Amino acid sequence: MKRANYLPIEWLGDRVRILDQTKLPRQEVYLELSDAQSIASAIKELKVRGAPAIGVIGAYGVALGALGIETRAIAEFHKKLGDVIQTITATRPTARNLFRMLERMEQVADAGSSVDGIKKALVEEAIKIHTEEAEATRKLSEFGAELIKDGFTVLTHCNTGPLATTGYGTALGVIIHAFEQGKKIKVLATETRPLLQGARLTAWELKQAGIPFNLITDSMAGYFMKQGEINGVIVGADRIAGNGDTANKIGTYNLAVLAKEHRIPFYVAAPTTTIDLGLKTGAEIPIEQRSQHEVTHIQGVAIAPTGTSVQNPAFDVTPNKYITAIITEGGIIKPPYGEGIKSICK
Amino acid sequence: MKRANYLPIEWLGDRVRILDQTKLPRQEVYLELSDAQSIASAIKELKVRGAPAIGVIGAYGVALGALGIETRAIAEFHKKLGDVIQTITATRPTARNLFRMLERMEQVADAGSSVDGIKKALVEEAIKIHTEEAEATRKLSEFGAELIKDGFTVLTHCNTGPLATTGYGTALGVIIHAFEQGKKIKVLATETRPLLQGARLTAWELKQAGIPFNLITDSMAGYFMKQGEINGVIVGADRIAGNGDTANKIGTYNLAVLAKEHRIPFYVAAPTTTIDLGLKTGAEIPIEQRSQHEVTHIQGVAIAPTGTSVQNPAFDVTPNKYITAIITEGGIIKPPYGEGIKSICK
Repeated sequence: MKRANYLPIEWLGDRVRILDQTKLPRQEVYLELSDAQSIASAIKELKVRGAPAIGVIGAYGVALGALGIETRAIAEFHKKLGDVIQTITATRPTARNLFRMLERMEQVADAGSSVDGIKKALVEEAIKIHTEEAEATRKLSEFGAELIKDGFTVLTHCNTGPLATTGYGTALGVIIHAFEQGKKIKVLATETRPLLQGARLTAWELKQAGIPFNLITDSMAGYFMKQGEINGVIVGADRIAGNGDTANKIGTYNLAVLAKEHRIPFYVAAPTTTIDLGLKTGAEIPIEQRSQHEVTHIQGVAIAPTGTSVQNPAFDVTPNKYITAIITEGGIIKPPYGEGIKSICK
Repeated sequence: MKRANYLPIEWLGDRVRILDQTKLPRQEVYLELSDAQSIASAIKELKVRGAPAIGVIGAYGVALGALGIETRAIAEFHKKLGDVIQTITATRPTARNLFRMLERMEQVADAGSSVDGIKKALVEEAIKIHTEEAEATRKLSEFGAELIKDGFTVLTHCNTGPLATTGYGTALGVIIHAFEQGKKIKVLATETRPLLQGARLTAWELKQAGIPFNLITDSMAGYFMKQGEINGVIVGADRIAGNGDTANKIGTYNLAVLAKEHRIPFYVAAPTTTIDLGLKTGAEIPIEQRSQHEVTHIQGVAIAPTGTSVQNPAFDVTPNKYITAIITEGGIIKPPYGEGIKSICK
């Protein structure tokens, strides 16, 4: 599998270079971030987004935060590192990957005995996390591609390519790999309101990959399913509970219900770092509520009367019964998910 | 039932004054149209939209077209009037009301014996159509309000208020009437991509009516249904086949499937002029495919990479099995629809 020729996150030794996802597709702007606070802001403002990607950038944020702590007293260092981790933790609540990686970074810090040693170990751990996450998306893309047959038209939602993962992609990685295998694949990409990650980012990545696609509004999914034009739906995930219930970008649940009604397979693709074995069901997944402005304005232009009241949940939860299979780097998990997930995450 | 204090279409004796719906909610711009060609353009460009409203404006377009024909030779007049009707017919293919009203106008023209007499009769018929359509929406709003109970949160799609009907509204008319009855009603209004009639027009009309509402993206409907926050869905219609299958704004079918999955009643509200007894099922309803630009640009701003290929069906068809009831000025029709529709349209 080829790696994309753009790097959404790149470690430069004492800083991180990111491709600003809020500016795509109109501009390819790279930013260099050298402290934890700028990384926290980049996560909050969605300059870096996608569950696997924010796990990786969060880890780099901890490493950069650690490098910036000017003390040799280990107790003070730990206290300040705790503040750094807290700052990054407080950015976005739903994606599991961020918390998982912050836990890993914390464990590495706890295991160290000198400030310099811990700093070095944290940088190494962040790089390791980045490498592992990229590798996980390569593997899961290869497993998932088996499910995408020659001639398929696949519907996908939001953005789950290299941009969202820093590696090969989850749902979009699967599609890209199936295409690279020489299968004739077409994609229907939903625009994904409110922030239009499908129109802005997935369309951009599909063009980079040379895969034929049509962009549609989120509201058109049922129309094309009823026409018999969709052979499968594949989406990423922000958090998967122990029973397979999956939080993903708002609108995913609509698609899952529609897919079930039309007997179209509905696949979730995610690295195992997205799985939260601490949660029994999706009801326990915290759902981020974002600003009203994201709905009332599109790229700065008002689309609703001033003062319009809005609800803006950023994610929804798809119950496991709607999911045909969960594609991970450990293999493809089929129902019953509780068992399958445990055996792959052991 | 109170009439809205804005008039989307007003007959001024020798011209029509319309509220330009493409400029709302940012500007309330009224336009005066005095010939058939400007009316055809206003319909095509959605300055006037909504199935009942384009039926009414189409009739005025024929009347104005007739007034503009400068001949006293009846054969020549009929030929030129045929061109006028053809121009207006060719604007939009899906809504039944337009064709129904054009048929009525044609019949009136055919029945006349002098050019002056026909001109006078066409103006009178257009005014009669306007009055009857407004009255039909008042009646159906009153019938439908019975279905909206005190305390309900109702989800609606696209725009179906006075703007869309020139009268009291269809789905939104039902909601407004239930609210005026003193019931505590809340509305969830879907923004309705691509052209955002929900965000731009329904939000504006709900504010005018003083009804509490939240605006959501189309992709959020399933989320709120699963939360148990929606007691009913009510939408308008562009064309209803003899068996009750209903064409309406793209995204309606998504909502119907979601409503069924959550056992939430799904109502269609439309005057009987939207019903097309000539069509056995919804499969025969022509679906307008609109420009790619409507999806790739929002209020002039590009949201997708240049050259992105788009599909843009403006309507979808909801099979009758998803519809709990059809609300008309003749009463509420319940399944089986074939029979109920025939008895109300006789």
